[in-house]
Amino acid sequence: MNGAENLLQTLVAAGVEVCFANPGTSEMHLVAAIGKTAAMRPVLCLFEGVASGAADGYARMTDRPALTLLHVGSGFANSMANQHNARRACVPLVNMVGDHATYHLQYDAPLTSDVPGHASLVSDYVRVSESADDLAQAGADAVQASLRGAGRVVTFIAPADHAWEEAVEAVAPREPAGLETADGDAVEAAVKALQNGRGTVLFLGGRALREDALLAAGRIAAHTGARLFCEVFPTRLQRGAGRAAVQRLPYFAESAIEALAEFEQLVLVGAPAPVAFFAYPGKPSWLAPAGCEILTLATVDQDAAAALDAVAGRLGAVAAPALAEAAPELPPPSGELNPVAIGQSLTRLLPTDAVVVDEAATCGLGIFPTTARAARHDWLTLTGGAIGIGLPLALGAAIACPERKVVALQADGSAMYTLQALWSMARERTDVVIVIMNNRSYAILNIELARVGAGRPTPKTLSMLDLSRPDLDFVALARGMGVPATRATTAEEFDLQLAEAMGQPGPRLIEAMVVQRMPVQQQAKDPS
Amino acid sequence: MNGAENLLQTLVAAGVEVCFANPGTSEMHLVAAIGKTAAMRPVLCLFEGVASGAADGYARMTDRPALTLLHVGSGFANSMANQHNARRACVPLVNMVGDHATYHLQYDAPLTSDVPGHASLVSDYVRVSESADDLAQAGADAVQASLRGAGRVVTFIAPADHAWEEAVEAVAPREPAGLETADGDAVEAAVKALQNGRGTVLFLGGRALREDALLAAGRIAAHTGARLFCEVFPTRLQRGAGRAAVQRLPYFAESAIEALAEFEQLVLVGAPAPVAFFAYPGKPSWLAPAGCEILTLATVDQDAAAALDAVAGRLGAVAAPALAEAAPELPPPSGELNPVAIGQSLTRLLPTDAVVVDEAATCGLGIFPTTARAARHDWLTLTGGAIGIGLPLALGAAIACPERKVVALQADGSAMYTLQALWSMARERTDVVIVIMNNRSYAILNIELARVGAGRPTPKTLSMLDLSRPDLDFVALARGMGVPATRATTAEEFDLQLAEAMGQPGPRLIEAMVVQRMPVQQQAKDPS
Repeated sequence: MNGAENLLQTLVAAGVEVCFANPGTSEMHLVAAIGKTAAMRPVLCLFEGVASGAADGYARMTDRPALTLLHVGSGFANSMANQHNARRACVPLVNMVGDHATYHLQYDAPLTSDVPGHASLVSDYVRVSESADDLAQAGADAVQASLRGAGRVVTFIAPADHAWEEAVEAVAPREPAGLETADGDAVEAAVKALQNGRGTVLFLGGRALREDALLAAGRIAAHTGARLFCEVFPTRLQRGAGRAAVQRLPYFAESAIEALAEFEQLVLVGAPAPVAFFAYPGKPSWLAPAGCEILTLATVDQDAAAALDAVAGRLGAVAAPALAEAAPELPPPSGELNPVAIGQSLTRLLPTDAVVVDEAATCGLGIFPTTARAARHDWLTLTGGAIGIGLPLALGAAIACPERKVVALQADGSAMYTLQALWSMARERTDVVIVIMNNRSYAILNIELARVGAGRPTPKTLSMLDLSRPDLDFVALARGMGVPATRATTAEEFDLQLAEAMGQPGPRLIEAMVVQRMPVQQQAKDPS
Repeated sequence: MNGAENLLQTLVAAGVEVCFANPGTSEMHLVAAIGKTAAMRPVLCLFEGVASGAADGYARMTDRPALTLLHVGSGFANSMANQHNARRACVPLVNMVGDHATYHLQYDAPLTSDVPGHASLVSDYVRVSESADDLAQAGADAVQASLRGAGRVVTFIAPADHAWEEAVEAVAPREPAGLETADGDAVEAAVKALQNGRGTVLFLGGRALREDALLAAGRIAAHTGARLFCEVFPTRLQRGAGRAAVQRLPYFAESAIEALAEFEQLVLVGAPAPVAFFAYPGKPSWLAPAGCEILTLATVDQDAAAALDAVAGRLGAVAAPALAEAAPELPPPSGELNPVAIGQSLTRLLPTDAVVVDEAATCGLGIFPTTARAARHDWLTLTGGAIGIGLPLALGAAIACPERKVVALQADGSAMYTLQALWSMARERTDVVIVIMNNRSYAILNIELARVGAGRPTPKTLSMLDLSRPDLDFVALARGMGVPATRATTAEEFDLQLAEAMGQPGPRLIEAMVVQRMPVQQQAKDPS
């Protein structure tokens, strides 16, 4: 048995079952070993950013790591933007990166690069295999390291000679650390704060946005009058009919500041204190009001549900939490196709336990509040701001949850970063409905251009924020990668096409020619 | 005038005229400043790897840097694979990367990253602006640093507040170092080696592959009997009818070793000593025979043409060099569409001074030798092995040389990494003919799988090297980005479509459904 085969057996024993792969020559023995390992499912991706984003989506839905298989430093570089997002999502993800044979590095062949240097920019743990015998241990160490706290992005590097040389037997997996328990003092401090009569926000993120944790938070809110907010870009928010409602903090800093202005205390549960996404001239970056006290009940790596339960218990919070009511039966929307109409169709048609991936940028800010009373579902967002994650995330979520419908709400500009994910969706017959919001613009940048005070734009300036000339045709692009697609230009057409897509297995793409007349800042302020 | 406007004036004064841009919110003042600077041409790219590859193509054809405009660490990461290739091509390239406002970094907002850390992995020079007043100087320093030797990939980082704050006046450009002069002792040593009667190769790369340098090398070869080889992946090889012929070293290590086996001396001119691209079990990485003496006449940063002229002068080499004869008038090829047929059509139809970008992988190895006698042209290759450069390189070459036809020979698998370049080609009305070699496979990996001795592949293994299920439809993909496209399934169809594409301005894409029956290793050994 060679090092690669030994490694794959070890990874399977450690519970890793899926590998999102984009290999090169230095990974051929790893590819051959995957091919011989029945319990490992390879998913070929046509670009590395698809592999890393899909591994993130898989992890968000399972709390377990998928593997990526990547080719030396340059292949890793292509995956890094979505590694950054996965790291900000605090999920487990194990990168398996091939490199030249150890003795070949001295020759500085064209593809030679500093693979550990690349990996360390986005990984919390980097491990280079030291021999064929050590390769399986490197993999086992990486899996263990990935399951620390809520999860870590980790990377292990497999030199080609360690993969092809003979190796000793597989390594037994070791127990990962997993979620920590919140500090007892933190629980007591939160209880006291919630009893002192000051205006208080429970600011929720990470695992605190799962159903059980939210119910505990909802009981606390009902008992104390505290308000529930969640971070702007949650990893996985469980919401919809029957679930405890939480208000999403607005994206635009001035709206977020306004939303938080009345509060004297913020209790953080699985989220850092809220800050502005970008800096703007003359505006603050810190969003909580001056003098607002910040307490941490649970970090993102701690068991938020248990901590919230403990607080609720200490408070004697037995009152029923406020739950989102199911939306009434609604007629199909009509007329202009805009984010609200899309949200209305989704509310009508989303099946129970759907997974919604939201990289719809400005349109997403409008769709989110209008779907608050849809059937219960999970809402996944762009956690790290590096655009191009939506389609890969949907691919990974669909591989993780073949029994659930996945809906990818995708802006046109960011779709173009990792559009190759469509091909893997078709190949793997994933049940994904992709809705492209085609407004022929980097709409968010047109807004940001005004917000940063860059003066009156020239036509040349605007041309750099504009996606027309030529117009992108997503129906043709999808067909080119084997995904059936249609175009909707009215709310009626969209509703019909979405109903059809919901009624049959995917993948299926709808190009929604959206109109955005509403001031986006207003949408962002609407409660969810 | 703000820092951004001041910077743009400085960059223009330093001779930079084109900016391949993929900006985000932190670059809005840079975008606005470009919009106000008449002499700076922005080219919007839908993905950062397109921007960096296009800047490389521009530099290869002009020997001057283009700017890229990139968004923080994650945007830079998306550009890195092609930065790696540009670095291996030894071309000047100036990355202008925005970052958060300096005071915003402390908040660790979601997009916060180690931008200098990213940049340093692929840049020879990294400069972070220290103030609004310093920003223009940072840009000027970067341009100067990029023009050291043959060229350097450099990066300067523009915090958003330095772009938007008021700044002092523009900075005057300083003279860059440019090409160095080869060492007199190296010239003497090369002269002696060429006179000692031993079997000698002039091993040429970099600027030594331009027409004048090759003519001098050809005179030396004619006078001494030395053989001319060039590196496997040249930055820019000037070849075709009327130019001094040079043999390209084969890609596969065993073929390269065989080609060099008879020689006792290698004189390096603008190239490092040849090494294997990858390591293979039991095969050497060093390609020159044991005991072969290696001399360096000129490094890649030295003036190869002057050094070769000096050697030719000292040798009294006045004999006419061997020049490639123009191909006779040929009929259109017929029957199976394979790399040789494509090469025959190109030989018939390539206009004088075309630029050929070759990322055709296995197919390119077959096309190259068959086009040796086409009208004179420049041949650009994948210098660093990080696939996904071909279409961006063609975009950049076309922006640099609007009067020349650009032909992109592009493998299917690598096309999918940076296919977004097609949209910029259409938007900029570049005169590019794209030929996609669709063999529905990562063909090179199927070959490498056997060469590394990974055993008999399982169907699951082969599925990871296969681009079918679903088949990619490049005609649809091209149309989706506004590029007219047709499909050719026979040599006759291809010839007709290529003739039509050559007769009108581009962009235009031909999807060539290629058959590859020939053993690829055999093709690789054919002389050019």
